[in-house]
Amino acid sequence: MIIDRLFESVEKKGNVCVGLDTDLEYLPVEFRNKFMHDEHALYRFNQMIIDATYDIAACYKVQIAYYEALGLNGLKVYKDTLTYIKSKGCLAIADIKRGDIAKTAQMYAKAHFEGDFESDFITVNPYMGMDSIEPYLPYVKNNEKGLFSLVRTSNKGAEDIEYIENKENKKVYDIVGEKLLKIGSEFMGECGYSSVGGVVGCTHIDEGLKMRKDLGKMFFLIPGYGAQGGAANDVAIYLKNGNGGVVNASRSILLAYKKVENGGSHFEQCARAEAIKMRDAIRKAANK
Amino acid sequence: MIIDRLFESVEKKGNVCVGLDTDLEYLPVEFRNKFMHDEHALYRFNQMIIDATYDIAACYKVQIAYYEALGLNGLKVYKDTLTYIKSKGCLAIADIKRGDIAKTAQMYAKAHFEGDFESDFITVNPYMGMDSIEPYLPYVKNNEKGLFSLVRTSNKGAEDIEYIENKENKKVYDIVGEKLLKIGSEFMGECGYSSVGGVVGCTHIDEGLKMRKDLGKMFFLIPGYGAQGGAANDVAIYLKNGNGGVVNASRSILLAYKKVENGGSHFEQCARAEAIKMRDAIRKAANK
Repeated sequence: MIIDRLFESVEKKGNVCVGLDTDLEYLPVEFRNKFMHDEHALYRFNQMIIDATYDIAACYKVQIAYYEALGLNGLKVYKDTLTYIKSKGCLAIADIKRGDIAKTAQMYAKAHFEGDFESDFITVNPYMGMDSIEPYLPYVKNNEKGLFSLVRTSNKGAEDIEYIENKENKKVYDIVGEKLLKIGSEFMGECGYSSVGGVVGCTHIDEGLKMRKDLGKMFFLIPGYGAQGGAANDVAIYLKNGNGGVVNASRSILLAYKKVENGGSHFEQCARAEAIKMRDAIRKAANK
Repeated sequence: MIIDRLFESVEKKGNVCVGLDTDLEYLPVEFRNKFMHDEHALYRFNQMIIDATYDIAACYKVQIAYYEALGLNGLKVYKDTLTYIKSKGCLAIADIKRGDIAKTAQMYAKAHFEGDFESDFITVNPYMGMDSIEPYLPYVKNNEKGLFSLVRTSNKGAEDIEYIENKENKKVYDIVGEKLLKIGSEFMGECGYSSVGGVVGCTHIDEGLKMRKDLGKMFFLIPGYGAQGGAANDVAIYLKNGNGGVVNASRSILLAYKKVENGGSHFEQCARAEAIKMRDAIRKAANK
């Protein structure tokens, strides 16, 4: 099961998931100007971030939207970035949040678990129901692939749907969590977690404690560290013995160079320092 | 407002939305074998379907998953297909069901309302809440673009989330519909519908009648005609005076040739005949 590889990676390297949500605007100007084509600059930037962090990052999350926005050339960089992550022996989470059913979902599975855009994990959106999750499961079972489904997010709009409460006082996200746990029970790794994981944002402490308890066997992808406001103590609630989750940070790592004088000339080292700081803060908060 | 263009197209050509969910396996073998590269066959197939239907199709829905599954070459066909639809003066709905927030959603908006993958409408997924819809609205306002958000689908799994009922007996899909209606009220076309539309599958008659009444100003994208089981009488419930919605059919049109002897040699004419049959059946059922 792929989740064992992620679990081991966290044991060895810590909980940091480096988010390659790389906007061209994030590149230091002097660096970007060295390239004839922006796409080459983008790829080289990603490569240098990966080279500088692969020994301290549990995994990478690549947000496809940033590459789609650059059209076909951008998607070539997306593909090459995934390939590069793999070449370093690291795990990639494709943040694509797909949510569709039947043959369409099978096509997405083929698209992101094979071929040009192959990754280890993908994120999915459960709105249409569990038959929007099931088409990916043959890959989880047979091809060492994994999922992170949206469960509960920490954006303001999460109230609109995820927090709707039914007559038994269960929230939509509780119900989604339960259903995913049930599906995931067939894809358990030796580490005690399922290859069907959940995306869980940091909110209140009590909600976090309950969620970690209710979803004991679910591995969490926790977004929003740093730039989006999460802090080490907040995310530690979602971990167990310092494992059971990875914590994504994108901007705070990619743009760490902006807080350093002349940081642009060694942006990758600034990123590394920031990722180490984050890793250590989470380890400390989790008493690991 | 873009919705006026779609409304007028329905007035003129009927309610059929031709779904270009084109799987390579759908191509007649003898046709596919004529091409050196599968991607060329795929694009030529789409072109011929469009050429044979553009005067009787309200619009086209292109399901990106089928193209993603072929990697970068497939996405080139996706891009070219959208461009070809536009060159014929027709409207394209990009069925991408994106659902993300903040800057990521802005990137998706850029990706699908500008540049390589520009389309007229996109489908979106509301799970994360209305702040996963809002980033697209500047394009609706300023660039003649439109949205179709998932509201209620007709797959079995729809029960899992969309049908969860809160303490006031409102279902998740009711709440989503209301919220979309509110957002959409700022983007009303002269035709009486909003450029923020909804994806609504055919279920029971009473549900359909209630939905058409509750969401009077919402234009519907209705999937699932033909191969997925919907019929003219079922979809007519979701229309008003024969307008207010487009009805998507993919396989029943693309594969119409399979029901005709030697149909593969003139698959595009079989598709046209099937689309006309569907158009007329819906018109009749809607008393148009």
